[in-house]
Amino acid sequence: MIAEFLRKHSADFIILHGSSSNANFYYATKFKTYDPLTYIAGIDGSDILIVPEMEKKRAERESRVKEIVSLNDLGYMEKLKELGDAKKAYLEILVAILKEGRCRKLLIPEEMPTYISFELMKHFEVEVVKNPFSTLRIIKSSSEVEKIRDTSNAILRCVKWAVENFSFRTCEGMRRAIELKLFSEGYLAENTICSTGKSSADPHEIGKGEIEEHVVLDVFPKSLDHLYYSDFTRTLFVRENAELEEMYKAVVDAQEKALSMIRDGVDAKDVHQAVKDTLNSHGFKTEKGEGFIHSTGHGVGLEVHEEPRISELSVELKKGMVVTVEPGLYYSKVGGVRVEDTVVVRKNGCEVLTPFEKFIKLY
Amino acid sequence: MIAEFLRKHSADFIILHGSSSNANFYYATKFKTYDPLTYIAGIDGSDILIVPEMEKKRAERESRVKEIVSLNDLGYMEKLKELGDAKKAYLEILVAILKEGRCRKLLIPEEMPTYISFELMKHFEVEVVKNPFSTLRIIKSSSEVEKIRDTSNAILRCVKWAVENFSFRTCEGMRRAIELKLFSEGYLAENTICSTGKSSADPHEIGKGEIEEHVVLDVFPKSLDHLYYSDFTRTLFVRENAELEEMYKAVVDAQEKALSMIRDGVDAKDVHQAVKDTLNSHGFKTEKGEGFIHSTGHGVGLEVHEEPRISELSVELKKGMVVTVEPGLYYSKVGGVRVEDTVVVRKNGCEVLTPFEKFIKLY
Repeated sequence: MIAEFLRKHSADFIILHGSSSNANFYYATKFKTYDPLTYIAGIDGSDILIVPEMEKKRAERESRVKEIVSLNDLGYMEKLKELGDAKKAYLEILVAILKEGRCRKLLIPEEMPTYISFELMKHFEVEVVKNPFSTLRIIKSSSEVEKIRDTSNAILRCVKWAVENFSFRTCEGMRRAIELKLFSEGYLAENTICSTGKSSADPHEIGKGEIEEHVVLDVFPKSLDHLYYSDFTRTLFVRENAELEEMYKAVVDAQEKALSMIRDGVDAKDVHQAVKDTLNSHGFKTEKGEGFIHSTGHGVGLEVHEEPRISELSVELKKGMVVTVEPGLYYSKVGGVRVEDTVVVRKNGCEVLTPFEKFIKLY
Repeated sequence: MIAEFLRKHSADFIILHGSSSNANFYYATKFKTYDPLTYIAGIDGSDILIVPEMEKKRAERESRVKEIVSLNDLGYMEKLKELGDAKKAYLEILVAILKEGRCRKLLIPEEMPTYISFELMKHFEVEVVKNPFSTLRIIKSSSEVEKIRDTSNAILRCVKWAVENFSFRTCEGMRRAIELKLFSEGYLAENTICSTGKSSADPHEIGKGEIEEHVVLDVFPKSLDHLYYSDFTRTLFVRENAELEEMYKAVVDAQEKALSMIRDGVDAKDVHQAVKDTLNSHGFKTEKGEGFIHSTGHGVGLEVHEEPRISELSVELKKGMVVTVEPGLYYSKVGGVRVEDTVVVRKNGCEVLTPFEKFIKLY
């Protein structure tokens, strides 16, 4: 796939620089690293990962890259002593290895740090491109879907437990319990939203203080093993509140409409429009930053927010994409509600990876 | 400080783009965000953070930036509809806001994504600079030291608990217990090293399988509240092993030598050399990728590895820097040992933030 991309751009190599916290870098290398490394792939199908000496053995065992070379192999220590500057020495190594591969034209992904691009430009013809790995990542393989399903199942176990044992008095206590439960099973959830009262009208408010009538629970952990995310929201009603429940009925209805439309070939823009129309038909207007103030959904994978978006923009949804469907309504005088599932786009519909009851009344 | 930096470079503005997983971006804005945002600071002391509409209120509450503007305020939605491309629309917004500020010369930090730099270059004189916030970050304020001390104290409580209740049979079980204990207190440790046997000769091997004679426990959590790290290693002896204990005595001795030297004004290179000399004087050679195969230490703060490095390179250590001191010895036929503390450089010495007994014999 990458060789084909290079041919299309008449380029000899593509170069990536990052750590495994960069989803494209991890996808390309399958190597977990905190410190940023460089990966180079060539038009002849060759690829190479450049690592510090002491990571070499681990990289040989764990990464999917064919050739692992260490900085020592490349004479980095001598360059460092000569130049007295780690960045300069590193850049000289990169230029040398590309020259050795007879690179003429080099592809640089958009997110490449500028200091590397500016140096490489001096030595090679460069073209800045959208990272081809981010394009590959949009359609999930069945093994990737299974990883997202695994994280989804962890969410479902945890939410089931939280609902059955609901005795949380504060947003902070609820968040801590849920995140600890997930962590104990090997999943990292940060900034889990447990928001309540009027402040839940801010969709990104994570919530604090005493739980009032309702809680918007939005949890999006990643597996600490395979690093894939899933994303899930339910609005829990702790005490009766007719106004919030009316709003929630509308978002569940809008979500069902969206889920019924999602299938291979549908335009994401039409799904987003259907959500807006359904909320409007329930009498909920969007204006002056209130109402349905975000998009309908986003891709989920090695990042919790990735392509494709389900928004105003036209994007064809294709089978194998994994997206969230998450309508919400937010009014500062009342509060916010949201429902969200992570789904796989299939040929004739979609498969919900996070099936869980929509209406959860705890009173 | 930033205004002064801009004056020195005869520039009008500096522009940063990132999320709070970028330490410089978080340091500059004190705003926690998953999605990348743009921050612009001007020579007149003005600064501005550009956020999505729904983050505006939270940014006004939480960030330290004076002026918060939303993408909607800047006409992003109209641009997006007009251009049909989120990145292009975003870049047009950035160019417009800089032009409105009458920018002529713009500073771009080295790590800025290339696609942004290339666009800005078309409209302004640009200079690529080392991020001035990364320079500011090297010297910690007393409040930053207190945050690193807080994380250090969490490590000490956790290690004390692990040592007192040591009944771990496997590396995985020990790692899970320690990480869960830390997480329950609000600290995130990932890839905690609990390595044993000969595979501990690879300093980055996190460890697997049954615990043999010893465990190298290297734990480096960050606070989920204030985001500051600390870094700590002890080699625990589970059963007697004279060879490993001999090696450990040498690294403890080398560490004590280094700690006795660290103070305001010392050259890090000399500290590193003293560690090498001490290990040599104990008869432990470094050659062919075995022995003391890494540097003596690194800065700790919002990143677990940051400036300064204590290595072959000449760097003056200054009061307020926080660094690790972590000699180790690694021989593939025996295994590895390491001791590590996080310390603050003071005027006349250093303060160890992670005081804990060095020799831990569990047999």
